Amino acid sequence: MICDNIAVNAAGHLTFAGYDTVELAEKYGTPLLLMDEERIRQNVRTYKQAMADFFPAGSVPEFASKAFSCKQIYRIMAQEGIDIDVVSSGELYTALAAGFPAENCFFHGNNKTDADLRFAMDSGVGYIVVDSFWELDALDEIAADKGITQKILLRITPGIDPHTNQKINTGSVDSKFGVTLENGQAEVFVREALAKQHLQLCGYHCHVGSQVFDSEVFCDAARIMLQFVAEMQVQYNYLPTMLNLGGGFGVRYLEKQPTVDYRARIKEVADCVREVCAALSIPMPRIMMEPGRSMVADAGMTLYTVGGVKEITGYKNYVSVDGGMTDNPRYALYEAPYTLMLASRADAPVDYTASVVGRCCESGDVIQPNVRLPRPERGDILAVLTTGAYNYSMSSNYNRVPRPPVVMLNAEGDYLAVKRETVEDICRLDV
Amino acid sequence: MICDNIAVNAAGHLTFAGYDTVELAEKYGTPLLLMDEERIRQNVRTYKQAMADFFPAGSVPEFASKAFSCKQIYRIMAQEGIDIDVVSSGELYTALAAGFPAENCFFHGNNKTDADLRFAMDSGVGYIVVDSFWELDALDEIAADKGITQKILLRITPGIDPHTNQKINTGSVDSKFGVTLENGQAEVFVREALAKQHLQLCGYHCHVGSQVFDSEVFCDAARIMLQFVAEMQVQYNYLPTMLNLGGGFGVRYLEKQPTVDYRARIKEVADCVREVCAALSIPMPRIMMEPGRSMVADAGMTLYTVGGVKEITGYKNYVSVDGGMTDNPRYALYEAPYTLMLASRADAPVDYTASVVGRCCESGDVIQPNVRLPRPERGDILAVLTTGAYNYSMSSNYNRVPRPPVVMLNAEGDYLAVKRETVEDICRLDV
Repeated sequence: MICDNIAVNAAGHLTFAGYDTVELAEKYGTPLLLMDEERIRQNVRTYKQAMADFFPAGSVPEFASKAFSCKQIYRIMAQEGIDIDVVSSGELYTALAAGFPAENCFFHGNNKTDADLRFAMDSGVGYIVVDSFWELDALDEIAADKGITQKILLRITPGIDPHTNQKINTGSVDSKFGVTLENGQAEVFVREALAKQHLQLCGYHCHVGSQVFDSEVFCDAARIMLQFVAEMQVQYNYLPTMLNLGGGFGVRYLEKQPTVDYRARIKEVADCVREVCAALSIPMPRIMMEPGRSMVADAGMTLYTVGGVKEITGYKNYVSVDGGMTDNPRYALYEAPYTLMLASRADAPVDYTASVVGRCCESGDVIQPNVRLPRPERGDILAVLTTGAYNYSMSSNYNRVPRPPVVMLNAEGDYLAVKRETVEDICRLDV
Repeated sequence: MICDNIAVNAAGHLTFAGYDTVELAEKYGTPLLLMDEERIRQNVRTYKQAMADFFPAGSVPEFASKAFSCKQIYRIMAQEGIDIDVVSSGELYTALAAGFPAENCFFHGNNKTDADLRFAMDSGVGYIVVDSFWELDALDEIAADKGITQKILLRITPGIDPHTNQKINTGSVDSKFGVTLENGQAEVFVREALAKQHLQLCGYHCHVGSQVFDSEVFCDAARIMLQFVAEMQVQYNYLPTMLNLGGGFGVRYLEKQPTVDYRARIKEVADCVREVCAALSIPMPRIMMEPGRSMVADAGMTLYTVGGVKEITGYKNYVSVDGGMTDNPRYALYEAPYTLMLASRADAPVDYTASVVGRCCESGDVIQPNVRLPRPERGDILAVLTTGAYNYSMSSNYNRVPRPPVVMLNAEGDYLAVKRETVEDICRLDV
């Protein structure tokens, strides 16, 4: 199995976090997003412990909300004692509504509106990660207006190509995010930030992309950023307390992808940071990372009911399910890979090839092409694995299809974290 | 201008349907989706009149809901006296909640659940467009259970390549939709449908793709389908009352794309249908079409506020706006082209090139790359034209960004058709 929270029971049903998925599909209906709470906590603890063991004191992971945002996930993160990043007033509002402490929030985003900045400061948000010169000016003005000093980080674009999908590549020079290092703009950014009366510069932030499987990309980013730290010390006598390397490690969606040993990779990054700091004769700053996907992806599984199979002799077989690009737009957007299993007959021979497609009135509504499965029948339960990251958060109501509920699983039982949307809900804003 | 409902006023502001867009942005906030109600009605009347003039009596357009669904659009369609197609219980529910007559609804979809079929029949939906053998069986069983006879069409896949984007190409053999004609399955489909006790076969449906700019594709589909009509008459002595050719004509998103004369193209299709029917010695069935995009696309315009401009010397300029892939995922999904204008200074020289990007924490959140504009400043209003189709319907809450309101414009005034979503709304289903 691709992840050790998945197995097959005596009834031939797929189990997830020890639960019979067919029974859960019956209890809650489909489509259904399951989240393994224990797995989320394990992932969080792996990052937290490794960062505590290998990085300087105060180094903690921030959960990247964009991967999965709802009230319950913030309660879990608060209980686990880690920080979060948010990229909108909506994510911040959700976290605060769940009781997450504002001072442990980092507010990101390439285009924060004045309303966002005011809401963040009124909420007492810990840090605002300033993405641009115009934001720096707007933020200082609003902070002045409020008579407060806001702690900030500066987002720097280090110019690294992490060799990942272009759409999720955010660290190269050509990016909408941050201020570019290599053309000297980052230095001006630091100078201007230090001159702001109502802002307290606490450090730097960079982000080198998603689905990174080794430590080398983070080490490259650390080398570039620490060199910059040293230069800024010489130039402005400024040393950051915090260096945020952004992102987290990659996730295994397919058997053929590697399993990442997060602890070992974090140790490699820490070794690199220590060496570089020693060579540059600078103190080690607190090192922050922002895993989102790798904290929740393998804690998720989506269950669908099969509507039927269409066999076009000489062409292809199509298996239609009762969800699709509305609850998982990632194949339509990125041709993202997923592993699928027939949950209701998980012990049947895998001897059939089909494209699994959704119910939207759109040919591009594909969950995954050319999947190997037992031949499904109408009424079978089909599972898409590793759907904990970006599936719920990117879901839509295209074709007025309601969004699935999120059911959390832990040792005590199964419980609703997000209720199933209804067609009445979808019409609520219609006049 | 790309469409005659767009102009520039004395203040240098872009106008839409005669309204000052900057004033509307101020009144309703941004992002904001404007819909020109008069333009929607004109588009509907063009189709309706041409189909009445050139096709046999009873031929009417069906508005394809998936392009834009909310209660108000169904009130407009009801007033204009045309039919609609729906592809989910959610679209049907919305139409009925707005008072649209159930008997004028066609229920589509490649994967209707039993719950969908029951809801449709309980609502008294006019026609169910049966997409597969398994649906035919399920539908007959449920109709028997309810003791009713349900009117149906059969969706046939004619095997036409309309040379459009693969993702919106639905008429070729390799499709999740319908039953294939060329391998003989369609004939079996008709035989089985005719044998069902609780279903009344009223005709055939096919769909050859989206963004079709000439009549030839529809004529090809009509030729293939009418040949099939003639064969089924010989074989089963069955003549359909209705032939639905699906889809509508293409829409002009860019100046360089053609303006389609819908009336002239429909006349060409009608001429072809008449000739083919005469040659085959079959009566002309009622001809239905299902325009969605071409009824609403040019009736829409999205307004954004510019957050700022990032200039990376030697690389690229980025203009960030306060919306993005959440309210317009069509570039991210299809690299769909759009025309953009600086609404607040629409008379300024167009001397700047930039990629216009959204506010999501994702590099792929691009509204349009390499756009020519006057250089924007923070606070400027930017307009994306021709956003009436698929933008609102495909919108999401990614990054917990609320969806924009829809404001309708007509000769009497401007009014809310869909209220602005709030962050509280987004959290409503969170436990």
